[in-house]
This record gives sequence, structure tokens and C-alpha cells, in this order.
Amino acid sequence: MTENDKTPNTGSSEQTSQQRHKQRQQKLQQHVQQGIAKATAEKGLLLIITGNGKGKSTSGFGTVARAVGHGLTAAVVQFIKGSWDCGERNLLEQHQVEFAVMATGFTWDTQDKAGDIAAAEQVWARAEQMLADPAIDLVLLDELTYMVSYHYIALERIVKALQNRPASQHVVITGRSCHRTLIEMADTVSEVQVVKHAFDAGIKAQRGIDW
Amino acid sequence: MTENDKTPNTGSSEQTSQQRHKQRQQKLQQHVQQGIAKATAEKGLLLIITGNGKGKSTSGFGTVARAVGHGLTAAVVQFIKGSWDCGERNLLEQHQVEFAVMATGFTWDTQDKAGDIAAAEQVWARAEQMLADPAIDLVLLDELTYMVSYHYIALERIVKALQNRPASQHVVITGRSCHRTLIEMADTVSEVQVVKHAFDAGIKAQRGIDW
Repeated sequence: MTENDKTPNTGSSEQTSQQRHKQRQQKLQQHVQQGIAKATAEKGLLLIITGNGKGKSTSGFGTVARAVGHGLTAAVVQFIKGSWDCGERNLLEQHQVEFAVMATGFTWDTQDKAGDIAAAEQVWARAEQMLADPAIDLVLLDELTYMVSYHYIALERIVKALQNRPASQHVVITGRSCHRTLIEMADTVSEVQVVKHAFDAGIKAQRGIDW
Repeated sequence: MTENDKTPNTGSSEQTSQQRHKQRQQKLQQHVQQGIAKATAEKGLLLIITGNGKGKSTSGFGTVARAVGHGLTAAVVQFIKGSWDCGERNLLEQHQVEFAVMATGFTWDTQDKAGDIAAAEQVWARAEQMLADPAIDLVLLDELTYMVSYHYIALERIVKALQNRPASQHVVITGRSCHRTLIEMADTVSEVQVVKHAFDAGIKAQRGIDW
């Protein structure tokens, strides 16, 4: 019995509750099945995970783990990050996932715009090759959004590479403040919002959770 | 040169732009470092990923992949799902991640409330053991929120198990409509919102991306 089952009934109340549950679920099933029947297209998807909350890169790497677990091939390009020990990389490189990393770290640590742009160019060139390679089923472009907002890589080059990629190739882009042109191109867009964050309560970033 | 560098300057404009960039980044670095200096506590975290958007479970599994990549031990309890082929499980079981799965599937498919509750009880009992085991560094309780909203598992039991867990154990809870009591207990909470979803545009759920 749940709190939802408060309508008066006589006799076999448990059976009636079960029957009502079954009827509700049958209706819901019909609704779900209608949705599934309408969704018939298959193609390489562009997924974007943006917003200020924790869990964007994590979700991107989770998608790579899922794909690899199904035997798909995947490649990862890490913009910004990649200069420190990365749990996902340790794991996924054991499963033939290629990593290309910009590895400069945060702009406030490098304080070198020209150097950052050169590093971005170099790793983007590798990303372009991956986005042209039909042998790669999934490409994760982790933190790519910042390359656009910092004007390190021209938006037009990114749009062109995405548009010209193999028809069945999936791409995941993560990072805050994703440019609206990419949002418009995407098939699925999620926005991760902060409700609260341990860091703001004085808890330090921890191995295995935050990096 | 970027679009931000439009202030008039004379002489060595490139050098000036570089200098301005460096000054901005030094200020930013100071701000970031102050935040890091304040965040000194270490403890087992409770992370919740809720909301209606795509990427909650994916983010939970990404956290497991990250932790395992750092040599931490992890265990996964899947409520609702687990009855079909799961890419993450294929991968993570190769890395000694234990899975306990309810494996009933969606309520609209089982249409059997008593059976669903019995299955929930059984898998929750396993979760309680994991949450009492100091040898497990991270426990993912995937889709646990529905067990509370369906009244399948009493909120009090969940709260008690979380409160009494080993002090260094991290827990990730995923699912829509997370109960406010759990939100209040959590250290970090992210809400994933739908901006758009491929399914609504008639694209079917695809292996390696959606499951």
C-alpha cells in the first residue's frame, strides 16, 4: 500500500489497489510505446552537455564508457584539461580509446594567450582528423565550448568539421556557455545546473570524484 | 587577436594584448587560489544528479569509471533498469565493479506493483550491505530516487544507511525528482535539464549512446 492508495474501497482492497496500479501502468505503457513507434530514425548524434553544474565531463566520459562497453570505437579530445592525472583516461586507454590532450591547464595558470592558442590549434587539428575518420564511432570533445568563447578556434571550422563528419558518427561536446550555433545544430542538449557544490562548503576536490 | 581586443592602442599592440591577458589571468588565478585554500576538508561525499535531462546515469557511471581509473573500489546498484544489455556494465565488470540489479524494468512494462516492491526490497538489502562496507570507496545508487517516489523503499531506511556509512565512502544517487530530504543531506547536487532531445525529433534510442 502506498500513500497514493487512499480512495475508499471495500472487500479485497489489496487486489483492487493492484488492479488500479495495473490499469495506470497499461495506459502509461501505451503512451511510451506510441513515442517509441514514432522514433525510427538512426543517425550519428550530436550531443551537448552544457551549464555551470558538476557532471558535464563526467557524463561525456560515461558515454564513452557505455559505447566502448558495446564494442564501439571511441576517441577523446581534451581541451583545457589533460595536464594532470585523469582517472577516466587511465581506464579508457586500457580499452583502445585514443586521447588527444591540449594539456595546457587553465588560462589563469598558463597566463600565456599565444601559447594557449598554439596548443588549441594543435589539438584541434587532431580533432578534425578524428571527425573525418569513419572508423571512429564516437568522438568526445571535452571542454570544447571554451575554445569558442575564448576565440581560440574559429566557430566556422568547428561547424564545418561537425557537418562533414561520417553520417553514423556520434559526437559529444561538453563545457559551459556553449555557443548557440552549436546548440542549434545539436540533436540532444542537456544543461547541468548547480543546486549546491561541496567545494563551496569548504570541501576540497577529491581524487576519484572530482578528477 | 580576438574580438575582445578592440580597445585602441598604439605601437606594439600584440604585446599589449598579451600583457592585458596576463594581468587578467593573474587576477583570476588569485581568486581561484583563494577558493582552493579555503576548501580543505576531505570526507566521503554524497553526490546527487537529478532533473529531467539526459545524462544523469551516464554521469554516475562516468564517476565510477573515474574512480576505478584511480584504483578506487566501486559498486553499482541499478534500480528499475538492468534487465537489458548495458554498455557500462559490460565495461566496468571487467574492472571488478560489482553490480546489483533490480532488473524488473519500467513499471509500465511489469504492471505488477507487489512484484516490483519485492524486487526493490531485495536489491536494497544488497545496497545496505555495500553502504556498510568500508572496503567499497564509491557506491552508485542508479535511479534510486524512484524507489522513494513510488514508496517502494522507506525514505527513513535510505537516510539511515547513508548516515551510518563509512566516513570516507562516496555515494552517487541519480534519478528524477529526488526527495528534498536527500537533497538536504547531499554535499553536491546537480540538476540536469532538457534543452532538447533527439527522441522528440523522431530519432530512436541508439546502442552506445542511449543504453
